[in-house]
Amino acid sequence: MGAPLKIAIAGLGTVGGGVVKALSAQAAQLAVRAGRELVVVGASARDAKKARGFAVPNFTTDPLALASSDADVVVELIGGEEGPARALVEAALANGKHVVTANKALLAKHGKALAAAAERKNLQLKFEAAVAGGIPIVKTLRESLVAYEIQAVKGILNGTCNYILTEMEASGASFADVLKDAQALGYAEADPTLDVGGGDTAHKLALLSSLAFGVAPDLSHMTVEGIQHITPADIHFASEFGFRIKLLGVARRTASGVDQKVHLAMVRARSPLANVDGAANGVLVDAGQAGPFFFSGRGAGEAPTASAVVADLVEIARGSCTPVFGRPATELAGFKAGAGDAAFTPWYLRFEVLDLPGVLADIAGHLSAAGVSIESMIQRGRAHGAPVAIVMITHEAAQSAVERALKAIAASDKVRARPCMIPMEAA
Amino acid sequence: MGAPLKIAIAGLGTVGGGVVKALSAQAAQLAVRAGRELVVVGASARDAKKARGFAVPNFTTDPLALASSDADVVVELIGGEEGPARALVEAALANGKHVVTANKALLAKHGKALAAAAERKNLQLKFEAAVAGGIPIVKTLRESLVAYEIQAVKGILNGTCNYILTEMEASGASFADVLKDAQALGYAEADPTLDVGGGDTAHKLALLSSLAFGVAPDLSHMTVEGIQHITPADIHFASEFGFRIKLLGVARRTASGVDQKVHLAMVRARSPLANVDGAANGVLVDAGQAGPFFFSGRGAGEAPTASAVVADLVEIARGSCTPVFGRPATELAGFKAGAGDAAFTPWYLRFEVLDLPGVLADIAGHLSAAGVSIESMIQRGRAHGAPVAIVMITHEAAQSAVERALKAIAASDKVRARPCMIPMEAA
Repeated sequence: MGAPLKIAIAGLGTVGGGVVKALSAQAAQLAVRAGRELVVVGASARDAKKARGFAVPNFTTDPLALASSDADVVVELIGGEEGPARALVEAALANGKHVVTANKALLAKHGKALAAAAERKNLQLKFEAAVAGGIPIVKTLRESLVAYEIQAVKGILNGTCNYILTEMEASGASFADVLKDAQALGYAEADPTLDVGGGDTAHKLALLSSLAFGVAPDLSHMTVEGIQHITPADIHFASEFGFRIKLLGVARRTASGVDQKVHLAMVRARSPLANVDGAANGVLVDAGQAGPFFFSGRGAGEAPTASAVVADLVEIARGSCTPVFGRPATELAGFKAGAGDAAFTPWYLRFEVLDLPGVLADIAGHLSAAGVSIESMIQRGRAHGAPVAIVMITHEAAQSAVERALKAIAASDKVRARPCMIPMEAA
Repeated sequence: MGAPLKIAIAGLGTVGGGVVKALSAQAAQLAVRAGRELVVVGASARDAKKARGFAVPNFTTDPLALASSDADVVVELIGGEEGPARALVEAALANGKHVVTANKALLAKHGKALAAAAERKNLQLKFEAAVAGGIPIVKTLRESLVAYEIQAVKGILNGTCNYILTEMEASGASFADVLKDAQALGYAEADPTLDVGGGDTAHKLALLSSLAFGVAPDLSHMTVEGIQHITPADIHFASEFGFRIKLLGVARRTASGVDQKVHLAMVRARSPLANVDGAANGVLVDAGQAGPFFFSGRGAGEAPTASAVVADLVEIARGSCTPVFGRPATELAGFKAGAGDAAFTPWYLRFEVLDLPGVLADIAGHLSAAGVSIESMIQRGRAHGAPVAIVMITHEAAQSAVERALKAIAASDKVRARPCMIPMEAA
């Protein structure tokens, strides 16, 4: 057996605590797997007085102190793309320490530079916990699906959004009401913007995109939408058509580069992604000739995330030497945005209109002028002069054409809110 | 860049050809990932004259010659638990060469000894392609889901069986007819026994069990059934109850050891395993505190299997040093069979009986005597004295109790064939 791997952990919240407990509970088995013991030699957290239910040696409130400790590896669980998280990771690498992190924001923004810093010193920078919790999708893209060119990655990557959409479907309640309940239950943050606005999904998608396509992680070329504007009616109509509404992160190889989007999609009720329920995550990888692969499981929470961190630690203990993003950072191509208009699908459209003569003719006219033809239409309830919802499914149409029509329609004074458009995915 | 990794391939069938083609088509990308080139330096196959559509250097009809070639790694794609496959793997390891193999039969029988031989010499013996084709389930169990004790692994591991069951459901045709079609299409072997009898699933399950529970692969403690006795009626009734019939390999941690079974199961129509269609594979891992994880994709065929082999080669090129089964072979526990009677579920029962007075009372009486109570019953068609099918769903009952009742029932001269019993899985 080799010398113990000395571990310092920055951040003792849910995940950090889970890592400390798992390393202790499974110490013997992990030592057998790693060929050496995994020992926590230090830890930091903001609150020195908090009762945590477990002990750590050399506690400090200064995370940066861990970078100059005698640890072999620093586990960064602070979060945030700048500030102490970034300072700690940079200092740890500069001081010759491996790093394990769950910080998607940091890597989405600084991933290439940090990977280069690690690789220059033959250090590992591992981040399985940053994407999809316990699902080993980072390792799978980095090491397993490497023989053929990956064509696309589509994921349900944010458990809070998926929980809210699932609850809205089950209860018929509004987004605002379900969000309030989720906050009370601890499933959503007090400030939920990063989750429900799609930003967290965007961070994770940038990492998957880098692993899948060999490009530097990039957030600047990405359209991002959230789930705030979904109504119970949309979910109900989706179900009538045999679909479910999901927030997806989608990255596709195109002729000119990589197309990355976080967007709402209607997915067929029997498809794997449609059946990812509640706070779970799921990722579909189109691995080209090798076909599609699907992975699902718990994407957040103590044990699933600690599972990912501990796996990274065991690998470092064993002496892993895979590049951070699967290819050396020096070989990662600059991000080149592919044509964003690859989506040529049927569309779900919802208009909130005043029930006045001619409103349907106006809408149909604008769609027709943009070359978008209507496959079916539902209008429920009639109340002259009052607001009603009109829902349409189009035949296959380009996103740009639908957007053109909706812009013209939204300008009408009979239309009360921004029209809603959601692509209906083939898979 | 390091010196090229020299590869010799034994077996140039579908998978071997796929590996040669992928190594050539993706040569530049693979070299970037591996830090060195991956070069085929020799290959063997039985037929020297066959037109293959690709060229290999140093072709030989003697696989054993590859073990004394200058290759760094030998890829064994011959198959079979003894004979040239075993001789080649043993000789290659003895001569200091890494081995990549897709041979589940060989490893299920000799896995521990071969792993020990490899590890004594610090050699890699990798077998991602042996289980579930392109799905990286071997790596996931070996390296990712390591932080908590795995409780169970359930898999659809044989594409031929799953294809036949899916086609029987879609067409209503008999097992024999669908098998004949599958053979004509090349989806089933001329001698299909190993596939449809469950033996291939058993080999793969033994490997997953070893990875999940840290035991030596073992085939001697495993009950194995196949799909030959399933009728279109069973599939029809399953669907009426909201279930689908699948052949599963199931390994569970029990209080006394590991319970391994290959058996037919009814799985809920909306569950992930139920939605693994056609020749695909799927694996559900109950990773204890980390929760359930599900993995699916193409489990056989040229590109998915070549994908797994190439990933193993890239890892060897990088200098991977993970033990063959996740723990050193010397640490693998001897296999200890857990109590096999863990299944306490509702059961689907089908009896082929002569439609005579008293037959139903007889069956109900025997079930009642064994403490098995009936939840619902369907009898279709009536024709006095002619054979009819009676189908029952029981309340939750122990397997042993149901077996006791069925043994008594089968002894009746009114019962025409061996009764069929299939557990209805909760998940």
